[in-house]
Amino acid sequence: MTPENAEAILRQYFAPWIQRLGLRVEEVGERHAVVRLPWSDDLAREGGGLSGQAMMAAADTATVVAISSARGGFVPMTTVQQSTTFQRPVVGKDVLLDVRITKLGRTLAFTEITLTAEGGDEVVARASTVYALLG
Amino acid sequence: MTPENAEAILRQYFAPWIQRLGLRVEEVGERHAVVRLPWSDDLAREGGGLSGQAMMAAADTATVVAISSARGGFVPMTTVQQSTTFQRPVVGKDVLLDVRITKLGRTLAFTEITLTAEGGDEVVARASTVYALLG
Amino acid sequence: MTPENAEAILRQYFAPWIQRLGLRVEEVGERHAVVRLPWSDDLAREGGGLSGQAMMAAADTATVVAISSARGGFVPMTTVQQSTTFQRPVVGKDVLLDVRITKLGRTLAFTEITLTAEGGDEVVARASTVYALLG
Amino acid sequence: MTPENAEAILRQYFAPWIQRLGLRVEEVGERHAVVRLPWSDDLAREGGGLSGQAMMAAADTATVVAISSARGGFVPMTTVQQSTTFQRPVVGKDVLLDVRITKLGRTLAFTEITLTAEGGDEVVARASTVYALLG
Repeated sequence: MTPENAEAILRQYFAPWIQRLGLRVEEVGERHAVVRLPWSDDLAREGGGLSGQAMMAAADTATVVAISSARGGFVPMTTVQQSTTFQRPVVGKDVLLDVRITKLGRTLAFTEITLTAEGGDEVVARASTVYALLG
Repeated sequence: MTPENAEAILRQYFAPWIQRLGLRVEEVGERHAVVRLPWSDDLAREGGGLSGQAMMAAADTATVVAISSARGGFVPMTTVQQSTTFQRPVVGKDVLLDVRITKLGRTLAFTEITLTAEGGDEVVARASTVYALLG
Repeated sequence: MTPENAEAILRQYFAPWIQRLGLRVEEVGERHAVVRLPWSDDLAREGGGLSGQAMMAAADTATVVAISSARGGFVPMTTVQQSTTFQRPVVGKDVLLDVRITKLGRTLAFTEITLTAEGGDEVVARASTVYALLG
Repeated sequence: MTPENAEAILRQYFAPWIQRLGLRVEEVGERHAVVRLPWSDDLAREGGGLSGQAMMAAADTATVVAISSARGGFVPMTTVQQSTTFQRPVVGKDVLLDVRITKLGRTLAFTEITLTAEGGDEVVARASTVYALLG
């Protein structure tokens, strides 16, 4: 699977509202993926910071990219649980989401997602997800 | 505070991307709020179900409504943590978010949000949030 | 199923270390259970407050009681995810855990647990769990 | 701070019930710690697997070790939120908890904890915590 295949999955399976995040797939691998959430004023709340809702949505979406890549293509799946912490504000910068699959079972998958702002090492948010694999 | 005041807060403080959820405030109280996420194909993923990302975003947003109502107006605040479980699919129905504040401290607030589809009693998703109050 | 049956499950299936919590089953029903965590200095950290670890462990254990009750007896199951918030200190009081099953599927179950100190209405902690049902 | 100092903190501040986990501090650093949960039948549930409750309790406790190390000594603190996923069973092996502090603020700290069984690379459980720093 290539980043281009993964972006095609984004366009085909996700809601129009999610398409507006403008996510780009930077890297896909056997057990990981890197997804970029480009800065946009459309995603910023009053005060100028990136909304936490956009980060949660991007983390969930990036998980589907990583699992699809690990399985070699899209499979039906659904989020069971997502936990997210918000640690630092982001203003005016793209966010990179590094997704690691820690377990890919027959029916359940677990991932960890680290969000950093472009050009910085510090964690801006962290998420973990549990997914049910349906096919 | 009235539902109209609360909707004004939504319009003033949230990102344009969040405005597109079309959230409506049904009820506000001293320690709770009820918010409606109207059905829209724009929020549905391939297959027709409401995206989990929209439910997470609505739960976070509804929390701000409930805390603002409890404090008698908007105060600067930021999400620290959100945990969400996804329990049943929603197709073609509005979702009602019932937010209960379980603690409103000086610096931290905790809420529980139950999401049901209109006309049904069953839980479609559940969220809990921790917020930092900055003012 | 009776509270006595449920306590027999506690004795049979849980680790000796968990037995030392001294949990008692107050109530079991079709979709809920109430479990008591008796106050003990053994569970208190320096300063005198009940340890959060004891509350997390009791919440997990109480979930097994509720699901067993809902299924009419113990079935093999395993915790997939637990999220817990800690909201108020507890000193010198029993804690009551009210477990509600929000979904009991074929392979996954979801619960919400509210912890209050005896004699008080305020939430001291909240937990949600996702369980995999194996039989 | 040394592992010995950290173990002294464990003995001084934690509940007697937590002491019975027998946690040992392997490593402490500026932003991390490694803690060992030795295998014990006392912590195993029926069937022989390590109880998830012990893993949650160890993760919480290991966080206090890491934050104390980062701050150069124990400071009063309290868990605000803990999310844990359980990914693989552990039978007959010690568990190593690797705690990373992703943010150490003035009033809030965030950590990520990876649990592996001794001699294995695979994640057996993952936890994230939010702590309030009180001093």
